[in-house]
Amino acid sequence: MAKIKVLIASGISQEVADLLQDAPPEMEINFLPEGESLSDHLSDVEILYGTLPEAAFPHATSLQWVMQPFVGVEGSMYTAFKESAITLVNSKRLYGPQLAEHAFALLLALTRGIHTQLDLMREKKWKWLPCVEVSGMTMGILGLGGIGRAVAQRAKAFDFNVIAVDPEPMEKPDTVDELGQLDWLPEFLSRCDVLTVCCPITPETHKLLSHAEFDALPEGCFFINVSRGKVVDEEALIAALESGRLAGAGLDVTYTEPCPSDNPLWTLPNVILTSHTAGASQNIAKRAMELFIDNMRKYVNGELLANVVDKEKGY
Amino acid sequence: MAKIKVLIASGISQEVADLLQDAPPEMEINFLPEGESLSDHLSDVEILYGTLPEAAFPHATSLQWVMQPFVGVEGSMYTAFKESAITLVNSKRLYGPQLAEHAFALLLALTRGIHTQLDLMREKKWKWLPCVEVSGMTMGILGLGGIGRAVAQRAKAFDFNVIAVDPEPMEKPDTVDELGQLDWLPEFLSRCDVLTVCCPITPETHKLLSHAEFDALPEGCFFINVSRGKVVDEEALIAALESGRLAGAGLDVTYTEPCPSDNPLWTLPNVILTSHTAGASQNIAKRAMELFIDNMRKYVNGELLANVVDKEKGY
Repeated sequence: MAKIKVLIASGISQEVADLLQDAPPEMEINFLPEGESLSDHLSDVEILYGTLPEAAFPHATSLQWVMQPFVGVEGSMYTAFKESAITLVNSKRLYGPQLAEHAFALLLALTRGIHTQLDLMREKKWKWLPCVEVSGMTMGILGLGGIGRAVAQRAKAFDFNVIAVDPEPMEKPDTVDELGQLDWLPEFLSRCDVLTVCCPITPETHKLLSHAEFDALPEGCFFINVSRGKVVDEEALIAALESGRLAGAGLDVTYTEPCPSDNPLWTLPNVILTSHTAGASQNIAKRAMELFIDNMRKYVNGELLANVVDKEKGY
Repeated sequence: MAKIKVLIASGISQEVADLLQDAPPEMEINFLPEGESLSDHLSDVEILYGTLPEAAFPHATSLQWVMQPFVGVEGSMYTAFKESAITLVNSKRLYGPQLAEHAFALLLALTRGIHTQLDLMREKKWKWLPCVEVSGMTMGILGLGGIGRAVAQRAKAFDFNVIAVDPEPMEKPDTVDELGQLDWLPEFLSRCDVLTVCCPITPETHKLLSHAEFDALPEGCFFINVSRGKVVDEEALIAALESGRLAGAGLDVTYTEPCPSDNPLWTLPNVILTSHTAGASQNIAKRAMELFIDNMRKYVNGELLANVVDKEKGY
């Protein structure tokens, strides 16, 4: 019987490649040779590990499913792919731990004045500074998927009152005190001492947070974004920082990336900007490959794949 | 009946002073006038809010108890005070939230490269950097008092395996996976991916962590200290940082404070130094005053005071 052709088109380490020894024997696994075009290697491929750019789409005539080793799927939401029967699998839930760690790194750096103390270190200056205790405050989480839930779990242990908004009807996890849908957004915002953005970018979330939304936040709110910069109307964010409405912002993502050098976010006080590194982890490549192998097994057994993206919803 | 004289000798805000309206009516509450000597105002004082330095001790002839609005009691452990019948109350447990928040601010700044990204921000440089995910790692907590427990609660939610050492026999909290006494220290250290110091300074803990202890840590361990610098043999800490044994250190305290300008901790890479600010919080003065008022009520009712320090143990 002919084997199922699998193409690995995303750079992986030898250690991660070794995991593929556990792939089902029905698979013939090939690696895209470095520097070669994906289009030239797609003809018989049934399963792709990587992404399928629009230019390569016409060559993917045998493709059944693609798994991308990251979460945001906006790069694959072109019409031909959306309308095709090709299943898209992403890495949702796998990024929860490190993204939540990054969100707390940004938040606690702001509240404990780590950025200011690092400035003082350059001058070898020992200086007591006031800090903000977050215990007892309200953390608002926008988007209660894998990342939002990982943030909620940690926020609860930091004794936050945890509130969340998500467009999907879902059971409220124990780590969330109150959960509402999008119609609750204005009240939700008015109660956030910290607002953490954890939602995907879709046509519905594009610039979801604009002037009215930042104006709805209480004075002195902290703003954290570890998911997608395009959820935010950046002019409104900058205005909220300049007016003092926001006490600070910790951003791993910006509307345009890399963040342009004339963007005021580079130089505004109480802004900590990291370079879309929240997904970085020594464990993530292994976790993604394990999911891929598990999905290959499911595929061979005729079971439903895990982490399938709803192309209509875009996550 | 003569009232019980209470002296407030620690600077407090009007808002916190207003809480004293809830003090028992049996109390006559006075404030030490700014710039005046404590010794001159102690004669009839039965209860002191502040600290009693050795020089003022001979004047404290009526003093029954002192409450200090902070935790570490080493400043009061002079012989005359230790041997006296004066009860010492400290603020243990009240500092748990903000000290744990500070410990995580330091740790996550190191693991998520916040210090490096802040350097890049100065150059408006967007650059992806590898980061360390702490989920699944082992967090060792040295000292499982109020601070250690607050750290453990948060560490568990970050999916750490939490292990702790404390000299006292005690029931293991649910947030701690394994708990041992001091004889377990060598094995405990050998398992720490992160070591967080949360113990008081006593004759027993002075330089408790020296060369042998740092050598027992696994390569690449992170070291966090938010309690007392004198628990650490700083030469050994610096050697462990220079050899690469430690991946980084987040220190709110140093052996000598302010940290002297020739101390290599100011300039070693992967060291984040804050200026003994871990206790800072917008809520702490209020929490301490509430405990003080509660203890005044207990005193009037002949009940045992809360948060009494064991002068023998020194915490």
